[in-house]
Amino acid sequence: MTGGECLLRTLVASGIDVCFMNPGTSEMHFVAALDRVPEMRGILCLFEGVASGAADGYARMARRPAATLLHLGPGLANGLANFHNARKARSPIVSLVGEHSTKHMRYDAPLSADIDAFARTVSPYIRRLDSSFAMGNTAAEVISAAKQYPGCVSTLIIPADFSWSESGPVGVAPSAPLPPRPAPFPTLATESAGFILGGQTLMGKGLDYAARLAAAGFKVFADRNAARVECGRGRFQPPRILYFPGPAQAQLKGIKDLYLVEAKAPVSFFGYPDEASYLAPEDCRVHTLAGIDEDGLAALESLGLPEAEFTDPPPAALPAEDGPLTLDLIGVVMAALTPEGAILSDEMVSSGPPVLAQMTRAKRFDYLPVTGGSIGQGMPVGVGAAVACPDRKVIVLEGDGSAFYTPQSLWTMAREGLDVVTVIFNNRRYRILDIEMKRTGAAGFGDKSNEMVDISRPDLDFVKLAESMGVPASRALRVSEFAAQFAAAMAGRGPRLIEAVLT
Amino acid sequence: MTGGECLLRTLVASGIDVCFMNPGTSEMHFVAALDRVPEMRGILCLFEGVASGAADGYARMARRPAATLLHLGPGLANGLANFHNARKARSPIVSLVGEHSTKHMRYDAPLSADIDAFARTVSPYIRRLDSSFAMGNTAAEVISAAKQYPGCVSTLIIPADFSWSESGPVGVAPSAPLPPRPAPFPTLATESAGFILGGQTLMGKGLDYAARLAAAGFKVFADRNAARVECGRGRFQPPRILYFPGPAQAQLKGIKDLYLVEAKAPVSFFGYPDEASYLAPEDCRVHTLAGIDEDGLAALESLGLPEAEFTDPPPAALPAEDGPLTLDLIGVVMAALTPEGAILSDEMVSSGPPVLAQMTRAKRFDYLPVTGGSIGQGMPVGVGAAVACPDRKVIVLEGDGSAFYTPQSLWTMAREGLDVVTVIFNNRRYRILDIEMKRTGAAGFGDKSNEMVDISRPDLDFVKLAESMGVPASRALRVSEFAAQFAAAMAGRGPRLIEAVLT
Repeated sequence: MTGGECLLRTLVASGIDVCFMNPGTSEMHFVAALDRVPEMRGILCLFEGVASGAADGYARMARRPAATLLHLGPGLANGLANFHNARKARSPIVSLVGEHSTKHMRYDAPLSADIDAFARTVSPYIRRLDSSFAMGNTAAEVISAAKQYPGCVSTLIIPADFSWSESGPVGVAPSAPLPPRPAPFPTLATESAGFILGGQTLMGKGLDYAARLAAAGFKVFADRNAARVECGRGRFQPPRILYFPGPAQAQLKGIKDLYLVEAKAPVSFFGYPDEASYLAPEDCRVHTLAGIDEDGLAALESLGLPEAEFTDPPPAALPAEDGPLTLDLIGVVMAALTPEGAILSDEMVSSGPPVLAQMTRAKRFDYLPVTGGSIGQGMPVGVGAAVACPDRKVIVLEGDGSAFYTPQSLWTMAREGLDVVTVIFNNRRYRILDIEMKRTGAAGFGDKSNEMVDISRPDLDFVKLAESMGVPASRALRVSEFAAQFAAAMAGRGPRLIEAVLT
Repeated sequence: MTGGECLLRTLVASGIDVCFMNPGTSEMHFVAALDRVPEMRGILCLFEGVASGAADGYARMARRPAATLLHLGPGLANGLANFHNARKARSPIVSLVGEHSTKHMRYDAPLSADIDAFARTVSPYIRRLDSSFAMGNTAAEVISAAKQYPGCVSTLIIPADFSWSESGPVGVAPSAPLPPRPAPFPTLATESAGFILGGQTLMGKGLDYAARLAAAGFKVFADRNAARVECGRGRFQPPRILYFPGPAQAQLKGIKDLYLVEAKAPVSFFGYPDEASYLAPEDCRVHTLAGIDEDGLAALESLGLPEAEFTDPPPAALPAEDGPLTLDLIGVVMAALTPEGAILSDEMVSSGPPVLAQMTRAKRFDYLPVTGGSIGQGMPVGVGAAVACPDRKVIVLEGDGSAFYTPQSLWTMAREGLDVVTVIFNNRRYRILDIEMKRTGAAGFGDKSNEMVDISRPDLDFVKLAESMGVPASRALRVSEFAAQFAAAMAGRGPRLIEAVLT
């Protein structure tokens, strides 16, 4: 058995049966072993950022790791931006990176680079394999590290000769996710107290506890950058902490004791002149009810609050009138038509708030927000979510600007026949930078600086982009067009793209 | 004057008037200052790898740095693969990276990351700005470091508040490139001696010296991964060291003394089982005539060899017969039609050797090869070369697989009206991996592993891809079609893409 095959068998024995990859020469024996290990599904990505983002999306939905296989330092480099997002999502991922063969490493070949240095920026656990015999055990250690609650990107660097040489025994890491540590038993302040929930407490039972907290008079918020939130009717939907410092501070105003549950104290996305970075009131005491590696569900359970009712927003209905597309109306259409159990991967950037406000009226869905802010997350996370949950409709919400960081995702959607509908919000601008520009105190855009934010001239044609990679696509300029196309996409199966042109 | 404006003025005062950028919030004051500093040309790229690769191509042709402006750690991460290539090309580049404002840095905001750690993988000189007052001087130091011969990626990390606060004086770095160190005076062995030329010795006068060496009985080779080589008729064209170890060893066989001129001792691209990594004969003495930071031209001049004639290959003529496209015939067509002074950015990967063999018969052109092996270099380097040399035709030669790492380059070509013709060699496969697979001793591809190398299903449509970003495009299946399309592209101006479908 080669080292490559041993690695594959160790992954499978440890419950990992999907590998998103963009392999090269040094990974050929791992690829060849796919023919001998039928349990492993290899999924080819045409760019490494698709593979790393897909593994993030997979982990958020499957709650167990996929593997990624990337080629040497530069291949890993292309995956880093989405590994950064995965790090902030605390997604478990087993990152396999090929390295030159040990005797080749001493020469400064063109692709030679410090792989450990690249990995260190996103991965707290890194092992460099030191013999082909140790493949199984070392891989099992790397897998175990990825699975420590809440999860991390865990890296194995594999010199090519340890893949092609005879290996030792297959390793095994525990298949089940490792449990979180129990949090210390809390005592609560009772007046002017609030909660920020994150991690697993924004799903299922966690939201029941959230409803009880709200009924008991506590203010309850969702961590804005949590990896996954269950939303829609039938679920208590705590407001997310808002994006800009002023509105977020207004949300938290008056809270004297703030309890964090698998979440961190709230800070703004960016710092601005004369605005706060830290968002809790100055005189607010901040308590960690459960740290990010602790059991927030058990901590909320231990509060012993009685069951509580909450009022759902009314269900959405399709808009009666036609007209040019607006964000509100796109949101209304989506809220009316999105099926129960859908998964939304959101990278709408500036288009987000009006759409999400409408989506509170949709049937229950899982929402996968931006976690680390590396642009290019939306479509890859959609790929991974669709692989993890093949029976659920995945909807990717993308800005026009953000869609162009990892457009290669569309090809993997087509190749694998994934049931992913990508909606592009095309405003022909890095619109968020209009807003950010003003907040940083810059004077606004003149002719020349405006060119760095205006992404028309030429306009991007998302229909042709999708078709170039085998994904059927259409363009909508009016509400009726968008509604018809979105309805067809919800009724059908397989990848599809809708370019929503905003006027 | 804001720090952002001071930075722009320092760049301009130091002879840097192009900035390839993908900015975000923390870079807004630099962007705003573009309106006040008309000498600086900002060029927007929709993905950071386009910006870093374009700066590499610009430096190879202009022989002076451009700047890049990227957004925080993840933005830099997306630029690293092409910065790796620039590092191996020894291209001078001033890499500007925005950072959170100083008071925001202590919080673990979503985009917080260790920017220095990202930069360290590709950049030997890194400065983190420590006050807005110091902007001018610190930037000048970073610029000077980039220009030390032969050149490097030099990084300035800029907290946002130092861009928006009042700055100190504008800095100035020397505009002229810094000269190389003189090499020690050599004495040559006279029997069975060979040379490997790199750096600036593969252009102009350097190739005259190469012809003299060959006439004097020395074997003369070109560094395979040099940044830039002058080729075509009218220039002495030393053979490049070949890609695979066996053939490369055969080239070097019998050489007893090997002289390196701005080049390193030859090693293979990858290591393979039972093949050599180090390519010079075991008993060969290796001498550094000029190190990579030394003056190779002066070292060759000091040998005092007499002027020498050499024989040009016959000029190319268009093929007489039509037929399906082959690599040879594409090469013949290109060699016949490429105009004097063209620039070729080559990322053909497996398609390269037959095409390049024909191109020895073309009129004089500059050839920009793969330097670091990070895929996704070809089109961005073409972008940068076209910005540096607006009066010369740029031809990008791309594999179908390699084209999909940085396809966003096409949009910048359209936006800037660059005179770049991209030829895609579409064999619907990561063909190089067929070859590499066998060399690593793996058994060949079964059905399942084959899927990781076959990039059809769905086929990539490069015409639609180009049109989606505003670049006119056409497809050629026969020699006559390719010849007509390539001739039209050479006669016209502006961006264009030709998909050459190989059967």
